[in-house]
Amino acid sequence: MISFKNDYSEGALPEILEVIVKTNLEKTVGYGLDEYTEAGVKQMKKVLNSEDCYVRFLTGGTQTNLIMISHGLLPYEAVISADTGHIAANETGAIEATGHKVIEIETTGDGKINLEQLKECYQLYKGKTHLVQPRIVYISNPTELGTLYSKNELKEIYSYCKEIGLYLYIDGARLAYALASEKNDIELSEYKNYCDSLFIGGTKCGLLFGEALVIFNKNLAKNFDYTVKQKGGMLAKGRLLGIQFFELMKENRYLNVGKVGDEMAKLLKERVIEAGYKLYVDSYTNQQFFIFSDELIEKLEKKYKFEIIKKIDEKNRVVRFVTSWTTKEEEIEKFIRDLKKS
Amino acid sequence: MISFKNDYSEGALPEILEVIVKTNLEKTVGYGLDEYTEAGVKQMKKVLNSEDCYVRFLTGGTQTNLIMISHGLLPYEAVISADTGHIAANETGAIEATGHKVIEIETTGDGKINLEQLKECYQLYKGKTHLVQPRIVYISNPTELGTLYSKNELKEIYSYCKEIGLYLYIDGARLAYALASEKNDIELSEYKNYCDSLFIGGTKCGLLFGEALVIFNKNLAKNFDYTVKQKGGMLAKGRLLGIQFFELMKENRYLNVGKVGDEMAKLLKERVIEAGYKLYVDSYTNQQFFIFSDELIEKLEKKYKFEIIKKIDEKNRVVRFVTSWTTKEEEIEKFIRDLKKS
Amino acid sequence: MISFKNDYSEGALPEILEVIVKTNLEKTVGYGLDEYTEAGVKQMKKVLNSEDCYVRFLTGGTQTNLIMISHGLLPYEAVISADTGHIAANETGAIEATGHKVIEIETTGDGKINLEQLKECYQLYKGKTHLVQPRIVYISNPTELGTLYSKNELKEIYSYCKEIGLYLYIDGARLAYALASEKNDIELSEYKNYCDSLFIGGTKCGLLFGEALVIFNKNLAKNFDYTVKQKGGMLAKGRLLGIQFFELMKENRYLNVGKVGDEMAKLLKERVIEAGYKLYVDSYTNQQFFIFSDELIEKLEKKYKFEIIKKIDEKNRVVRFVTSWTTKEEEIEKFIRDLKKS
Amino acid sequence: MISFKNDYSEGALPEILEVIVKTNLEKTVGYGLDEYTEAGVKQMKKVLNSEDCYVRFLTGGTQTNLIMISHGLLPYEAVISADTGHIAANETGAIEATGHKVIEIETTGDGKINLEQLKECYQLYKGKTHLVQPRIVYISNPTELGTLYSKNELKEIYSYCKEIGLYLYIDGARLAYALASEKNDIELSEYKNYCDSLFIGGTKCGLLFGEALVIFNKNLAKNFDYTVKQKGGMLAKGRLLGIQFFELMKENRYLNVGKVGDEMAKLLKERVIEAGYKLYVDSYTNQQFFIFSDELIEKLEKKYKFEIIKKIDEKNRVVRFVTSWTTKEEEIEKFIRDLKKS
Repeated sequence: MISFKNDYSEGALPEILEVIVKTNLEKTVGYGLDEYTEAGVKQMKKVLNSEDCYVRFLTGGTQTNLIMISHGLLPYEAVISADTGHIAANETGAIEATGHKVIEIETTGDGKINLEQLKECYQLYKGKTHLVQPRIVYISNPTELGTLYSKNELKEIYSYCKEIGLYLYIDGARLAYALASEKNDIELSEYKNYCDSLFIGGTKCGLLFGEALVIFNKNLAKNFDYTVKQKGGMLAKGRLLGIQFFELMKENRYLNVGKVGDEMAKLLKERVIEAGYKLYVDSYTNQQFFIFSDELIEKLEKKYKFEIIKKIDEKNRVVRFVTSWTTKEEEIEKFIRDLKKS
Repeated sequence: MISFKNDYSEGALPEILEVIVKTNLEKTVGYGLDEYTEAGVKQMKKVLNSEDCYVRFLTGGTQTNLIMISHGLLPYEAVISADTGHIAANETGAIEATGHKVIEIETTGDGKINLEQLKECYQLYKGKTHLVQPRIVYISNPTELGTLYSKNELKEIYSYCKEIGLYLYIDGARLAYALASEKNDIELSEYKNYCDSLFIGGTKCGLLFGEALVIFNKNLAKNFDYTVKQKGGMLAKGRLLGIQFFELMKENRYLNVGKVGDEMAKLLKERVIEAGYKLYVDSYTNQQFFIFSDELIEKLEKKYKFEIIKKIDEKNRVVRFVTSWTTKEEEIEKFIRDLKKS
Repeated sequence: MISFKNDYSEGALPEILEVIVKTNLEKTVGYGLDEYTEAGVKQMKKVLNSEDCYVRFLTGGTQTNLIMISHGLLPYEAVISADTGHIAANETGAIEATGHKVIEIETTGDGKINLEQLKECYQLYKGKTHLVQPRIVYISNPTELGTLYSKNELKEIYSYCKEIGLYLYIDGARLAYALASEKNDIELSEYKNYCDSLFIGGTKCGLLFGEALVIFNKNLAKNFDYTVKQKGGMLAKGRLLGIQFFELMKENRYLNVGKVGDEMAKLLKERVIEAGYKLYVDSYTNQQFFIFSDELIEKLEKKYKFEIIKKIDEKNRVVRFVTSWTTKEEEIEKFIRDLKKS
Repeated sequence: MISFKNDYSEGALPEILEVIVKTNLEKTVGYGLDEYTEAGVKQMKKVLNSEDCYVRFLTGGTQTNLIMISHGLLPYEAVISADTGHIAANETGAIEATGHKVIEIETTGDGKINLEQLKECYQLYKGKTHLVQPRIVYISNPTELGTLYSKNELKEIYSYCKEIGLYLYIDGARLAYALASEKNDIELSEYKNYCDSLFIGGTKCGLLFGEALVIFNKNLAKNFDYTVKQKGGMLAKGRLLGIQFFELMKENRYLNVGKVGDEMAKLLKERVIEAGYKLYVDSYTNQQFFIFSDELIEKLEKKYKFEIIKKIDEKNRVVRFVTSWTTKEEEIEKFIRDLKKS
């Protein structure tokens, strides 16, 4: 069965796996203090064009978010997120379990927070003893709905954050697909100018597993390793992450992962529109959201894997199709043929 | 440089890595709902001779401990541990960070809790409103000092736990080395009779990464997946863990991993004694603790990696040497030659 | 200056304070194990017509809410609240600080949750591993907007809660003003049929300080004292609370406190309407919400204390006037004269 | 029955209660923003001879400790305490429930930490990623065993704390009895030189209820009100605390409370020794610890209330007798007569 279910269905880029095999029996020290991790960190700093950022490789997204956010907040402080944000809608209260409120901003279908909403939210809370105090702004890029922030939007938001003393943390679990999007105008090396902290996804972008957490703001990085250990995020054989990120960030591989996924997604989107169906949201990355009837869904589910997001009216639902660096043109063409027949 | 630093210095058993490579481009569903995880779980149940236990594969030890323990405790409940236990002495307050006190029992050099200590501790706390209430007993087997619980000791402790309503949770991060020890009298398939929950280590016993958490007591397993997700323990490509544990538990591989480690440790121990040095503790597993002078340590450190545990008097320290499934006889012989020359 | 700022501006009913004075030098045991507390508890059970409920006297509202809710939730469970609910909007993240998400239901101006909303919310979360699981429903009666639940509404909600296994917890910080309202159709002795747990407010209803937390559901009350102590809610001289609640619940005093407050509020409301102003919400208890212009507010603030809630448009705001058992008719008449002159 | 059970058996100094009665019907704003609280704070600053310390009145000791300590710690930081310290041994894991480990220093019968122990403890933890990091040192004065720190001891400890960047927090739940002790050499006005934060007990020293938390170190006081509110420590009718502390700190009343308690304790101690019994610890404040046989205890318990602390051998136990500002010489004489007859 062809799967458009997600971008973590397969293993790793074969060239990365090869290096894991090749180095398998070497002995290194543990917990990320080895040379492979060192090389991976160096490689990250290079592509980020930032010599003095802090880089930590972790194993999963929820882990990365909860470690980053809990580290950055004092007991009475909170994180602001879109209501569709991963930490608000998909992580079983992981942030609250560390003691902090997620202040949700209601979004309007595109999963993005805008400057006006952020200002209004901040004004509502600031300085009131009977309310938590916002300290971190969490945004996803691409968002959970596949949309992107423009450089200008990011600039505006970050400039406001700095002005009032908030940290901006960007969850880029699917960052490769942002970087490769035709709509993207922010290069990886520029992110250091637009946020305090950046999560560069590996799991969904070609690795066996692994996420890179980059902290540009020194205040926020202070004593970070303690929190990593405490929350169970310190991998004993840390080199596995170092090797993977070193390899992933070489020779445009990260961008290429994104490119394949985005191109396949674009093809899929165009063909679905052509076939007469509607988009739920206009995404330019590797997640596409369509409105399909219950009847159609039933038929398609026999041959394809994809996600049903929610009911939209009595007869129709929103479905999500995700492509990745392994998606093939013929899979899409086959799907479209079946769609047209349905 | 030859390393006796730990048992997580190298990668995985090559035959396991091979399967990861072979299945790399297959697409499966995420979060441990795939067929490889299913097969891995089935395999675990088989070797545990327990059809209805709950099995969850996780990525690291601190993670496994904090998820298990925080899931099993109500807000005012606590876990009892040896003062040398991993959760008390090596995890940066991971349990306390989930809101619970670790009640430490002072041990006398072997890292083990005995029944009398447990009873005394329980009596001290039980029913007093101004004290936390013990609910889980945490023991490690092998302990952090390489020692083992006998079947009889485990029986006694577990029987007392059941009598008074405590859960017994065994951290077997190095369980392979317990199972293979000449002093061991508890088989893997018998553990279901002696505890409520068992952590079967993979990272230190031949895997790239991964731990298997087994819960025999249904009460304790209820709704466990929510806690796993909340604490960041749910690996997206869960099949990586399923594959590894399926392969590790096949054809006596797990026991063999332990056997090599234990035999090399025994050889090392005998030769060190022969050479006229003293043990800090009498271990029959893959961690050996010797008393070396500062002077000697300085010389050895130039050619060998090992851990310095603590000062024991003005001139001597306790050192830890760890063997694994990759340790070779010639490495030990070489070390002994150098030791004798020093 | 005349104050309509809140119902905790003054001390206690003089007849209650008298007993505190009279018993001042008696010696009793601490922590609520004394005879005065025993008598207070007995008195509570009597007016609640419930022999086997659990009663605990606490010192404040936020404390009561956080103790009750954190005690009733497992780590991955959450509490559902109106977005205007005190725990969502006024307690500085007290619930999240104990590790739990507050799931907010958007209300439509009256501060009440209805059955349809509750069902929809529950369906959205139930059984999804990547979401917290609702376990407690929190409602306030009267609500933070002065409105009331009818017996029928409560019945419906509680019946649904029992059906699906949720606890219903009612925050009655101002319960006296609910009981005395002309719109009320639920007697204190009937609450045991409509919820699992009830907070009967003292601080805002005639005491120096103190709240009574009543738990009708035995499961929910189990080992409650440990949580009380752990969260800092166990008053050393517990008898102070026992004496106060014993006296407050005698001879219709609690109802009378509510009656005075509600009658004064009704008078105020009628006169303000008469004077040509609009209500923000139609309240039948001791909190009244009016829409006043900025200009009017500025004038009134010179002579009266009241709360400004929020901007409603460019020129007008919502203000809150609170009456209590100490509010006097002449204060209201004076205010209305000044209002009319403004 | 004559009670030596504790120093929170009775109500308040009558002259303090009088003011509560006199001001009962005055209306003030809530949450400690009123003029009585202001006057109380001013009075505290005067007796502390510290213009710019932060003062917050709270309702109980566990509450005070958990608010102070959780406010001062980052997630991976811990508090050091004597194993007999109230936060370690009497508060149902209140500190751990806020996410932090209490590092216990084993004491040798007097409940005090000395500089050497503190240094050793700090060295053991400092800078190790797999261990929590000490940040606050918690000591009680008087200790839970009635003993006192000398000015010199405090100086040494505080000077070390400042040198290495630890905060020193002193729990003076019974501070009045320290100040009045014949062995005391630290005046209230000097404490600002020897710690970062001081808890000045009211409940056990003559108030109905209430503790004053004083923070001399500005860093530690920043945004403190948010934590107070979040943890349920903000009393609605805050003035009750302001009035009490204003009155208590007037005209040597606080010292006098301590004086009566200490003198009665001294009398008791001398007479018990005279009668041929042994002290468990040599206390110069209002808690006295004797070693009595089980048989004797049984007899005395019929006429006197006191606390049994622990078994000391097969036939004897440690008992605690506590005096207060209400203890009378004739109560002690009567007790001694009965003791001698026993």
